[in-house]
Amino acid sequence: MAGSIFGNILKISTWGESHGKAIGVIIDGCPAGIELTEGHIQQWLDRRKPGQSKFTTKRKEEDQAEILSGVFEGKTTGTPISVIVHNTDQRSRDYSEIASYYRPGHADYTFDAKYGFRDYRGGGRSSGRETIGRVAGGAVAAQILKRVGIDLYAYTKEIAAITADPRRFSRKAIMENPLYMPDMEAASEAQKVLEQRMGELDSAGGIIECVIRNVPAGLGDPVFEKLDARLAAAVFSIGAVKGFEIGDGFQAARSRGSENNDSFCSGADRKIQKRSNHAGGILGGISDGSDIIFRAAVKPTASISSPQQTVNRAGEEIEVVIKGRHDPVIVPRAVVVVEAMAALVIADALLMNMGARMDWVEKIYR
Amino acid sequence: MAGSIFGNILKISTWGESHGKAIGVIIDGCPAGIELTEGHIQQWLDRRKPGQSKFTTKRKEEDQAEILSGVFEGKTTGTPISVIVHNTDQRSRDYSEIASYYRPGHADYTFDAKYGFRDYRGGGRSSGRETIGRVAGGAVAAQILKRVGIDLYAYTKEIAAITADPRRFSRKAIMENPLYMPDMEAASEAQKVLEQRMGELDSAGGIIECVIRNVPAGLGDPVFEKLDARLAAAVFSIGAVKGFEIGDGFQAARSRGSENNDSFCSGADRKIQKRSNHAGGILGGISDGSDIIFRAAVKPTASISSPQQTVNRAGEEIEVVIKGRHDPVIVPRAVVVVEAMAALVIADALLMNMGARMDWVEKIYR
Amino acid sequence: MAGSIFGNILKISTWGESHGKAIGVIIDGCPAGIELTEGHIQQWLDRRKPGQSKFTTKRKEEDQAEILSGVFEGKTTGTPISVIVHNTDQRSRDYSEIASYYRPGHADYTFDAKYGFRDYRGGGRSSGRETIGRVAGGAVAAQILKRVGIDLYAYTKEIAAITADPRRFSRKAIMENPLYMPDMEAASEAQKVLEQRMGELDSAGGIIECVIRNVPAGLGDPVFEKLDARLAAAVFSIGAVKGFEIGDGFQAARSRGSENNDSFCSGADRKIQKRSNHAGGILGGISDGSDIIFRAAVKPTASISSPQQTVNRAGEEIEVVIKGRHDPVIVPRAVVVVEAMAALVIADALLMNMGARMDWVEKIYR
Amino acid sequence: MAGSIFGNILKISTWGESHGKAIGVIIDGCPAGIELTEGHIQQWLDRRKPGQSKFTTKRKEEDQAEILSGVFEGKTTGTPISVIVHNTDQRSRDYSEIASYYRPGHADYTFDAKYGFRDYRGGGRSSGRETIGRVAGGAVAAQILKRVGIDLYAYTKEIAAITADPRRFSRKAIMENPLYMPDMEAASEAQKVLEQRMGELDSAGGIIECVIRNVPAGLGDPVFEKLDARLAAAVFSIGAVKGFEIGDGFQAARSRGSENNDSFCSGADRKIQKRSNHAGGILGGISDGSDIIFRAAVKPTASISSPQQTVNRAGEEIEVVIKGRHDPVIVPRAVVVVEAMAALVIADALLMNMGARMDWVEKIYR
Repeated sequence: MAGSIFGNILKISTWGESHGKAIGVIIDGCPAGIELTEGHIQQWLDRRKPGQSKFTTKRKEEDQAEILSGVFEGKTTGTPISVIVHNTDQRSRDYSEIASYYRPGHADYTFDAKYGFRDYRGGGRSSGRETIGRVAGGAVAAQILKRVGIDLYAYTKEIAAITADPRRFSRKAIMENPLYMPDMEAASEAQKVLEQRMGELDSAGGIIECVIRNVPAGLGDPVFEKLDARLAAAVFSIGAVKGFEIGDGFQAARSRGSENNDSFCSGADRKIQKRSNHAGGILGGISDGSDIIFRAAVKPTASISSPQQTVNRAGEEIEVVIKGRHDPVIVPRAVVVVEAMAALVIADALLMNMGARMDWVEKIYR
Repeated sequence: MAGSIFGNILKISTWGESHGKAIGVIIDGCPAGIELTEGHIQQWLDRRKPGQSKFTTKRKEEDQAEILSGVFEGKTTGTPISVIVHNTDQRSRDYSEIASYYRPGHADYTFDAKYGFRDYRGGGRSSGRETIGRVAGGAVAAQILKRVGIDLYAYTKEIAAITADPRRFSRKAIMENPLYMPDMEAASEAQKVLEQRMGELDSAGGIIECVIRNVPAGLGDPVFEKLDARLAAAVFSIGAVKGFEIGDGFQAARSRGSENNDSFCSGADRKIQKRSNHAGGILGGISDGSDIIFRAAVKPTASISSPQQTVNRAGEEIEVVIKGRHDPVIVPRAVVVVEAMAALVIADALLMNMGARMDWVEKIYR
Repeated sequence: MAGSIFGNILKISTWGESHGKAIGVIIDGCPAGIELTEGHIQQWLDRRKPGQSKFTTKRKEEDQAEILSGVFEGKTTGTPISVIVHNTDQRSRDYSEIASYYRPGHADYTFDAKYGFRDYRGGGRSSGRETIGRVAGGAVAAQILKRVGIDLYAYTKEIAAITADPRRFSRKAIMENPLYMPDMEAASEAQKVLEQRMGELDSAGGIIECVIRNVPAGLGDPVFEKLDARLAAAVFSIGAVKGFEIGDGFQAARSRGSENNDSFCSGADRKIQKRSNHAGGILGGISDGSDIIFRAAVKPTASISSPQQTVNRAGEEIEVVIKGRHDPVIVPRAVVVVEAMAALVIADALLMNMGARMDWVEKIYR
Repeated sequence: MAGSIFGNILKISTWGESHGKAIGVIIDGCPAGIELTEGHIQQWLDRRKPGQSKFTTKRKEEDQAEILSGVFEGKTTGTPISVIVHNTDQRSRDYSEIASYYRPGHADYTFDAKYGFRDYRGGGRSSGRETIGRVAGGAVAAQILKRVGIDLYAYTKEIAAITADPRRFSRKAIMENPLYMPDMEAASEAQKVLEQRMGELDSAGGIIECVIRNVPAGLGDPVFEKLDARLAAAVFSIGAVKGFEIGDGFQAARSRGSENNDSFCSGADRKIQKRSNHAGGILGGISDGSDIIFRAAVKPTASISSPQQTVNRAGEEIEVVIKGRHDPVIVPRAVVVVEAMAALVIADALLMNMGARMDWVEKIYR
């Protein structure tokens, strides 16, 4: 089954393995007339690039984006945009050991179970490098959002149980610490914990939060294409995500109706608004005009350097120590991936919604 | 956009409003040769039928399923199975009041924002009755799962912060209390809290857990069609769901790699197994042969009888008291809906996976 | 595989067997705010109803359409429109004979080969009654087209090699003869040939032509979703169609570039037009603003009353005489089906095209 | 709308413009374990490469295929196969003239009408070079077909009204003349006519026929996913195709039921066969085990060197002479494209059909 295609009208189709020749994405269904350069995409890719701090793998991945089609004289033409990133740091080392056994917490075993064999070099298709195509796609989607005034950002809410304090929230801070936390104090504390974790040859997980502002009310479709269901699918398709919640999320399950219901009120020009936002900006699967706020739980990095129990392909139990350069936490690098997936969902929803009302159809064609 | 269709190979297409003539579903892509009667479907529908305890609405909904196509001589024919449920308890009462304002926590406002107007009778398409089609579809999917030995069940894990104790877990208990909890003590305590909540004209939420056993390793596709992403989308498309997590879920975000990684071990006949199941049965988006375990957070019922602040269609702020017969908690009735969506995802994944290996293709055609 | 769903944004999902309880369709993705009554749909269904002349089967099929959802106060709500037609004339006759062998020219054998068995009553899902859902869907699509000024009609171009003469073309005539020919003389001649054919217990085929006027330039997408490829798929999915051509069609294969190229010219207000229309209104898969004109070849009715050679399920060769009430030609009843499929394709293309340009996206959202 | 993706389970996603940096395709959903090298793909691409005879453009296009992902140790892994072909002969000439007006018979005008502007260099996305991705995809599909014994070939049936004589049919001849005709005499005659046509600065069209042998009975789905409807869509999505017919096609419209119905008979081991094949191998949209035979009508090359009337972007009428290197007929180069699209449809149908019967599902999973 073709599992590498995402979206309804705006579709991305990603390809590439960790240690193949290249990795890339096709963005199909993008409206014509949007300004797009390799610089726009590079800016996004640079945020997921490793080697920028001691908390990310020391592998050197240049990840230079090249646009091969779909852009003419600086603008999207409406035809598929093909973006390629060549793999430059494919160390030609010996993978025969890793080929022979199943790393705990990785997809080695499940790929073998599904396909009968696998491209074992660096995780193949299940590698985190697979997200390069998503991020490039998200960069394009973000150009669409910008044109209609939608503002979107994600950040690290929590790492190793160290949580950013909402009272110290600073959007500016996000880009000023290597963990992408909106609270410099929490970031500093989390870095200390991470250093300790690295010393223990262990890893940490965390929580990413994403905020989308100025979304027009009315996006998303009832029933199966609810906007939150689309966001859930998008975010849950990122490798290490184990949980997703919107608005008050799991906390809502312990709330009362009288607390959890957001009262409507009348804003400037009788614009309908909500007094609170427990719902997280979506009611009945459709955006309500408030900020969309969701969170994703990211598991601790599976690749750790301490000894682990596992089995080899012959089914024999063995102890292994996984070598290589690994992130002690993948949350910071996953922030931009979450942002990209959210941008893709919202841009797609904008396009999907255009045919919702006959008067809009007439507005275009009459 | 057509938001009422779900699935890749096994597709359901649901239709119907709360107070329309009927509600139903088409199940397309179901393999031929499966035993199916209206009884199979009715058994599932009866579990979501209201009026079975004081904790569900007193509305009388018979919800008799009728199969209109796709079954011949007791077996599915491979063509679309159309199931219809006539709406019998459509009280012809005056809806003009509800038509004029937006109920907090409901989709009234967002439907108006999207479509320009709405069918305001009983919530229209955003009513909980929309789930009838899902449950009928799930009953069909369950017949497929049964044939390959997959066992699936859901239950109420928590209501109003009263949690079923894993040490008292009893699968048998689930069907023996009106809250579908697997722990009679917790169920009894939760019922007391619910009675109190009803007295306060308020409502409660909770958490539903679902377990899927004997899933063959290899189901689900890498990248966007990960099995957990499909489950997340399926479950998040249910009206009141605000959170979804798999395995250790949000707890994994606070764990260490050395704790969270499940070691592989060798079972009988060198069958590869895991010593623990923090992952919840899915690695890299593909089933690993362990039990699949996930949870959904359900918000408290939005329809409460205490006074609430809102605005009318003219944008004027008003206070309203919503009349009618409402569930103080929708978790128990949502249990079977979660089970249905999970059954649909797994059955679809079974079919999607058949073409994953060329040797399987040859097994069918040579 | 779910083969009963058609469309990208505007999707129809049809269901039902010839001798099941009912037949129907769900139309999902229809814009909100379109006037729609059962009368609109009935008008279309009446054109495919049998028993209206001696050239159609004498079976009495009332085919009364009932709208079950998706319409409120006379207007589409944007949610799925479910239309049902109850099967009233299901003679409870003995089908055991027909169950035992394979009728030449029918899908009896291929259904058995695919599914292992079949609903043999009256052809089951492969019956012409399957088109009821398409026609109801087409009626809804036509309401969309009307709102943007698109005019669409089909007619019988040829029956049993008797061709309507373009010099005698009269749109009014189409509805004035039972064969739906736009030329009363040809219609009269064709009726004579058909009477003779019936006397010989034999059947005839023919050609249907469809014209779509006032289609805005720009509909259809490059590459696989070309507007003509969509029309070809739509029309070829109708049971008895064996050929499809657009504009000059097969004749273009014998033409020269200098003849076949349509020169552009400048119309009123410098509107770009074509001097000729060999292309049939589509260039590079995208509508060019000229009339879209295509033709479908329909095979002679497979059900004939003269003796035929075939095999039974045991593989033994036998001679059979098929009883029952059959159309000597299905072309006239298929005219409205072709029209319906064309309406669905064009309406879907209108919606698909709305996101083609960023300035249009801004027109809706800013 | 994403118009560059084709297929249900086996999906191809093509990208690239005539004069962009490269052109390519992603093949997603291909079963794991199929032998695949760049050589397999190159063999197919070489058949559409220009410059091989005087009847194809003199442009030098090397069209070297490079596989970037999805293949490991010579076998498909089940993950997306990315194939790229760099554009090497992009003459950096002045396109300002062609940018200013609309070439008759080309998509220049319709692209402008749809997107507001276009990549005018060599036709951009509407160029024949777009088919490179299809052919590469077809080469992969052919590897699947080979594994289950399906044999597929296409050839030029007719050029400029010179038709290959069925009595002189030779499959071997197809590869022995530059027009890919299965009849050396007709090929020789057609070449003479083409030379004359070139002298007149004009072009020719023709008909391509495709035969698919050893297709198991049962492929294709009832209603909208009929195998012939899928083939029609696939073939009609090729640029210059104006007509499609299967079996007797348009001729069937003039036939009688008694002639057109194919009698079933009993072959070796009581295998059910047909005595004739007017149907072209498909009954009710499902393969019947006979050869699948279809034809496509290809219009004469639109690019001709004689003077033509058209308008410029300002809407002024002008006379133009189109320069450049063009094929006097595109039929021979389109043969392999038709073959590729057919291979993709049949391979996809093989995979789609695997879930049609519950006993087959059990065969894989129990």
